[in-house]
Amino acid sequence: MKALIYGSGQLAQMMYLAGVPLNIEVQAVDVSNHTVVHPVSKQKLNISLTQAIEEADVLSAEFEHVPDELLVQAQYSGKLFPSQEAISIGADRVKEKSLLDTLNIANSDYRIIRHIDDLLPAIKALGQHVVLKASRDGYDGYGQWRIKTQEDLNPVLSEIEQLDLAKVPLIAEKFVPFDRELSILGARNNKGQITVYPLTENLHHQGQLHLSVAPANSTTDALLNQAQLAFEKIANHLNYVGVLAIEFFQVGEELLVNELAPRVHNSGHWTQQGCQTCQFENHLRAIFDLPLGSTKPLHPTAMVNLIGYIPPIESILTSNSTHLHLYGKSIRPKRKVGHINVTGKKNLDLVQNLTELAKKLPNEHFPVLLDGIKVQKQG
Amino acid sequence: MKALIYGSGQLAQMMYLAGVPLNIEVQAVDVSNHTVVHPVSKQKLNISLTQAIEEADVLSAEFEHVPDELLVQAQYSGKLFPSQEAISIGADRVKEKSLLDTLNIANSDYRIIRHIDDLLPAIKALGQHVVLKASRDGYDGYGQWRIKTQEDLNPVLSEIEQLDLAKVPLIAEKFVPFDRELSILGARNNKGQITVYPLTENLHHQGQLHLSVAPANSTTDALLNQAQLAFEKIANHLNYVGVLAIEFFQVGEELLVNELAPRVHNSGHWTQQGCQTCQFENHLRAIFDLPLGSTKPLHPTAMVNLIGYIPPIESILTSNSTHLHLYGKSIRPKRKVGHINVTGKKNLDLVQNLTELAKKLPNEHFPVLLDGIKVQKQG
Repeated sequence: MKALIYGSGQLAQMMYLAGVPLNIEVQAVDVSNHTVVHPVSKQKLNISLTQAIEEADVLSAEFEHVPDELLVQAQYSGKLFPSQEAISIGADRVKEKSLLDTLNIANSDYRIIRHIDDLLPAIKALGQHVVLKASRDGYDGYGQWRIKTQEDLNPVLSEIEQLDLAKVPLIAEKFVPFDRELSILGARNNKGQITVYPLTENLHHQGQLHLSVAPANSTTDALLNQAQLAFEKIANHLNYVGVLAIEFFQVGEELLVNELAPRVHNSGHWTQQGCQTCQFENHLRAIFDLPLGSTKPLHPTAMVNLIGYIPPIESILTSNSTHLHLYGKSIRPKRKVGHINVTGKKNLDLVQNLTELAKKLPNEHFPVLLDGIKVQKQG
Repeated sequence: MKALIYGSGQLAQMMYLAGVPLNIEVQAVDVSNHTVVHPVSKQKLNISLTQAIEEADVLSAEFEHVPDELLVQAQYSGKLFPSQEAISIGADRVKEKSLLDTLNIANSDYRIIRHIDDLLPAIKALGQHVVLKASRDGYDGYGQWRIKTQEDLNPVLSEIEQLDLAKVPLIAEKFVPFDRELSILGARNNKGQITVYPLTENLHHQGQLHLSVAPANSTTDALLNQAQLAFEKIANHLNYVGVLAIEFFQVGEELLVNELAPRVHNSGHWTQQGCQTCQFENHLRAIFDLPLGSTKPLHPTAMVNLIGYIPPIESILTSNSTHLHLYGKSIRPKRKVGHINVTGKKNLDLVQNLTELAKKLPNEHFPVLLDGIKVQKQG
């Protein structure tokens, strides 16, 4: 069995590793130059993209920002899972918001800004505190503006004046003073079988995910039901096949969808040590229409991202409760180069193991780790 | 970090998979033609063996029957772990027996047969029931004869008459009416740090391992101590670096060493789902002189070998307690093509999960599975 994945980063690499024991061969597409590469070595393979598409049983993507012409070609093959439509919704906040409204799924109030003159009325309608986001290609903290006071407005206006808003509109979103950020991941196969992992709590810093803990503490049935219902509505509506991630803001007992990711997701990396079947294997099972694997948590698990920094690996390997996952990437500021999964029998063990780990990690590179431990202690 | 592994089968493949998350690149040597290949795809890499040896940080082997000229070259590089000496002991029963005697480690009585005339005196000394084994290249049930009665003798004599016993002697071993077969695996790094996995019970059929269960039931401290002591004596004496496996016959409260394997071992595959750190990762950690990982069992685990047969994978994937590991090999009789790891929270859960699995597997290909379940039930 052969899968061709658009994108050749760590997500494709981890799909490859999950595929080998199932006799599934994963190849990757370097979307910058349309070459087919090995997902681990990144070496160019001796096969053209057209030929690789032909030979593959299924196609999929490790990220949603695949150039349109590639997605069209992939969709045309009839083997792309999830579909071009589903992938493009994840890449376009206008489509995303429209889908959420159609399905009556709670999300923060918003206005679409297609012209600079739309901004002031939008702010008036939404209230003073507004977040402006590019509708496309905006992720990981780039292309976002926060407008809190009158003084914030002028520099933003002069910046967005430069943009072609008719082509790439902005979304003006009412700022939500949320309690915390959660995500739900799950898989759906072609037969319509759905399975979801437990809610995960996510801690961000400067727009990047730094820490995930699962199962999230203090999740009421009301929260779980909202998350699961949102997942099912979206996945079924799109006839979605593969792993899908939904990020939420929790506000009291309500979940507001923040973002969809039509793919395996950083907030699901904990499943590698935390579940019988990890998200990478379940994505492959889904796109090959195989039975989905168990998403029940084995034990409380945390995922600590390595961003722009790799600690001396000896210090990590001496711990009995950690699993190191490096991506084979050179270090650059803000670049995700690996993650550490930490497990514990009970929540208290996890807190203790995270506390031990934190002693080995410099605070500057792990700015939310101590906050995360504090949150877990209260759980 | 780069490791070059002699042998390009499933063991090299599983080392490769364990290496990627540690930023360790594993290449493999196809010893039949001295080419360097990718351990998963088996495709020839664009590098000569000499160059690969030069570029590798460490060399190791996935099996002990590496041709001598290759081992000599590898040892000469100064980067081979375990050493040529250790590997060759695993490949030569005369050396193996001599080592066990030197270290005063219990094993079954034996005589070396260097000439056909040595056989009758050996049988006389050892008692009527004797097992004859080739001292080299004899594994997986080939090259073994059992002499139980006078009638068994003549056909054996006429067979071994053809052999060059001066070059490859036989070992005549007193047959031991053992209670069961156990193995211990562990790792030792260059600093001399040692860690061992719990005792594993192994069920064979026609000379091939079919089922392993760990931790083995009803293991007394006396048994554990003997196994651990044997491991430490051998590993320290050889200044061994890597994973080492020792197979035992249990006779009452005594363990007799049956065989050493200077490498990762089929009876350690259960560690992939049964331990925090699997044998493949610990082998890499050892040969790169990294801290060894935890060998504590997470839960009772069984390993079911797929030999000459792969069940419909859907039937395996529907189970919540199994992990499928296929090797990407075509099916031939007697060929190991994969294994299934089965876990359970407690021993009773494991028994139940194995029983469920057994319903899906044809008895002819899994001849000891029901026996294994029976044994576990008593545990």
